[in-house]
Amino acid sequence: MNHAQSFVDLVKHFESLPGIGPKSAQRIVFHIVMKMNPFDVTQFANTLEKIKETLQFCEQCNNLSDNRFCHICADHQRDQNIICVVADPKDIAAIERSKIFKGLYHVLHGLIDPMQGSGPENLKIKELLSRINQGVEEIILATNPTIEGDATALYLAKLINPLGIKVSRIAHGMPIGSELDYADSATLSSAMEYRRSLM
Amino acid sequence: MNHAQSFVDLVKHFESLPGIGPKSAQRIVFHIVMKMNPFDVTQFANTLEKIKETLQFCEQCNNLSDNRFCHICADHQRDQNIICVVADPKDIAAIERSKIFKGLYHVLHGLIDPMQGSGPENLKIKELLSRINQGVEEIILATNPTIEGDATALYLAKLINPLGIKVSRIAHGMPIGSELDYADSATLSSAMEYRRSLM
Repeated sequence: MNHAQSFVDLVKHFESLPGIGPKSAQRIVFHIVMKMNPFDVTQFANTLEKIKETLQFCEQCNNLSDNRFCHICADHQRDQNIICVVADPKDIAAIERSKIFKGLYHVLHGLIDPMQGSGPENLKIKELLSRINQGVEEIILATNPTIEGDATALYLAKLINPLGIKVSRIAHGMPIGSELDYADSATLSSAMEYRRSLM
Repeated sequence: MNHAQSFVDLVKHFESLPGIGPKSAQRIVFHIVMKMNPFDVTQFANTLEKIKETLQFCEQCNNLSDNRFCHICADHQRDQNIICVVADPKDIAAIERSKIFKGLYHVLHGLIDPMQGSGPENLKIKELLSRINQGVEEIILATNPTIEGDATALYLAKLINPLGIKVSRIAHGMPIGSELDYADSATLSSAMEYRRSLM
C-alpha cells in the first residue's frame, strides 16, 4: 500500500471506467487532489451522483434524455417521415456529428445476439413497429456492420418490408481517406460487391 | 447539442481531467449511464466528493495522508536516518513502486522555478531543515532531472552541506532496457560524464 486509503479508493473507481488504466487513474486522482479547486470537485461529484436519476429514456425513441422526449424527437423541424434505427444512444451521437441526417431515430438498446442470450424480444422492436404503424416513409437500418448488426438489420427488414415501407441499410465499404493496402478483406469484398456505376 | 444537458455536463467534468479527451469522456459517461449499477455510481460520487476533506498532508513529510502522519512516517520499521526529498507526492509513489528505498521522504510541493514565480520560500524547505536539525544521516535529492529539478537540488545541497550531513543526488543516465540509438544527447552526455569504473 503506497497511498492513503481514500486515495486508493478513488483510484479504483476511476480504474473501473473504460480506457482508464492504473497509471492514468492515479494521475487523475493526483490532479483532483493537488490541482482542482474544491468547488469544482463537489460539482463533479454532484453531477455524477445525480446522472442516473436525471437521465431517462425518451418515450418515443429510447434515446437518453433529460425530459420525457429527447431533444431530437422534440424538434418538430426534423423530418418525421424517416426513422434511423440504431443499437445504442451513442450511435445517435456519432450520426448527429456527421450532420447528414435530419430525420428521427429509434434506439433498439442492443442487437440480436444469441451467444449473449439477446433475442428480438429484448429489443425495442414492438415500439418501432408501433411508430411505423403511425405512418412513416422510410426506415434506415444503421446497426453496426458486424454479424450481430447485420443479423438484426435482416430480421427487421423482413418484418418491415411486408408493411410496404421503404427499408434501407447504411452502405458498407472503404472508409473515406483510408488505404486499400490496409483494408481488411471483408471491407474490400463489401466495397467491391456494392460498387456504384459512375456514369 | 447532440445530448441531454446532464449528459453534456458530466462529459465536461471528465474532459477537464488530464489524459481524457472529448471522445473518451463521452465513452466513459455512456458506460456510467448504460452499464454501471446505481450503487457503484453513488459510491464513486461520494468518494470523489469527500476526497478533499479526507486527504490531508502528513505533518512530518507533507505526503498525502488519511491521518496526521502518512503510512510511511508512521512506519517505525523504516530507516529514520535517511530522507529522500521529492517535489510531489506522486514521486513518492514512483519510488515506492521500485521497492529500493526504505527511508523516509520529504515532499517540497514544487520546485524552484522563477518563470512560474516559484521561489524557495514557496517550498517546504524550512520544514526540511527543521527535520535535519533533529538529526539525520543522509539527504537524497530526488527531484526530476530537469532544469528546475537540478536547480532545486543544487540550492538544497548548498544549504545542507554546511550542516555536515551527507547530501546525494539520484543518478542520471541511460534508462535500463533503453537503446543508445534512441537516447537524447543530454541523457547520453550525463551517462558518459557519470560513468562508473567497473573493476
